Amino acid sequence: MDVRYINPFIEAVRSVFSTMIKIDVTLEKPHVAEILPRYDISGIIGMSGDVVGSVVLSFPAPVAKVVVGKFAGGDFAVTSPDFADALGEIVNMISGAAKAKFEGKNVSISTPSVIVGSGHTVTRPTGTVCISLPCKVYCGEFSIDIAIREENRQAKAA
Amino acid sequence: MDVRYINPFIEAVRSVFSTMIKIDVTLEKPHVAEILPRYDISGIIGMSGDVVGSVVLSFPAPVAKVVVGKFAGGDFAVTSPDFADALGEIVNMISGAAKAKFEGKNVSISTPSVIVGSGHTVTRPTGTVCISLPCKVYCGEFSIDIAIREENRQAKAA
Repeated sequence: MDVRYINPFIEAVRSVFSTMIKIDVTLEKPHVAEILPRYDISGIIGMSGDVVGSVVLSFPAPVAKVVVGKFAGGDFAVTSPDFADALGEIVNMISGAAKAKFEGKNVSISTPSVIVGSGHTVTRPTGTVCISLPCKVYCGEFSIDIAIREENRQAKAA
Repeated sequence: MDVRYINPFIEAVRSVFSTMIKIDVTLEKPHVAEILPRYDISGIIGMSGDVVGSVVLSFPAPVAKVVVGKFAGGDFAVTSPDFADALGEIVNMISGAAKAKFEGKNVSISTPSVIVGSGHTVTRPTGTVCISLPCKVYCGEFSIDIAIREENRQAKAA
């Protein structure tokens, strides 16, 4: 996957966490995700248009609780609609900020789906390269996994 | 949600299951999904363009094993990449066939993400209407949940 598509996510994660959630994030080296980690909470956004694929933000439950609590200002049960809304909004903001930096590309994003279930995995189609960005915050770790590619489409007037 | 967007999914589920999987499906009455069911395996596709949202095909593990086995011709562990690929392809075919019948709409779909984790739930943003289509097959039940809406976009030359 082209690094031009990874850097916008690195910037977006840093920016959303520092401005909207008020937590500093340290990003470790991006790597190709081969072994699928198991997580408790995931927010998924689909991308379509000139770039297609998906963006998954995954957390252990205790880390998600702190992040959502800081973002939405409260203590929500992970099974509550407010919790899912907040987590969906975080992955939505990160994906929206990142795609805005895909130069010259017309990309739209789906509404977020939020998965709640301890120890679930999120798989991608074989042959799709998935780049994982490991993120560290003061209360633990989480991950943003990006599996996108350019779509060859018939030429269309802009 | 407009029934014009539900009927294409009903036709697509029937068609994909009868022609590609060789299992007859009985669809029960579509309803607004308020209580989130817990499932073991889900395939998720994001839609973007003139219609945005997501389509989730969810199964109990034993039903998913039968369906994938019939589709791909083999006995795959639910944690194997082949299993996820096959399940992703099924939700991809259903979503692709359905969106082809959204008349006059330019819609693109993301690559599928497949969730494996016993008893997980898939939530949608509050305020998003989610229509659930309960499906019965000889070996059990599964569900296709559709949460899509028309997107107001700036006029663009076709």
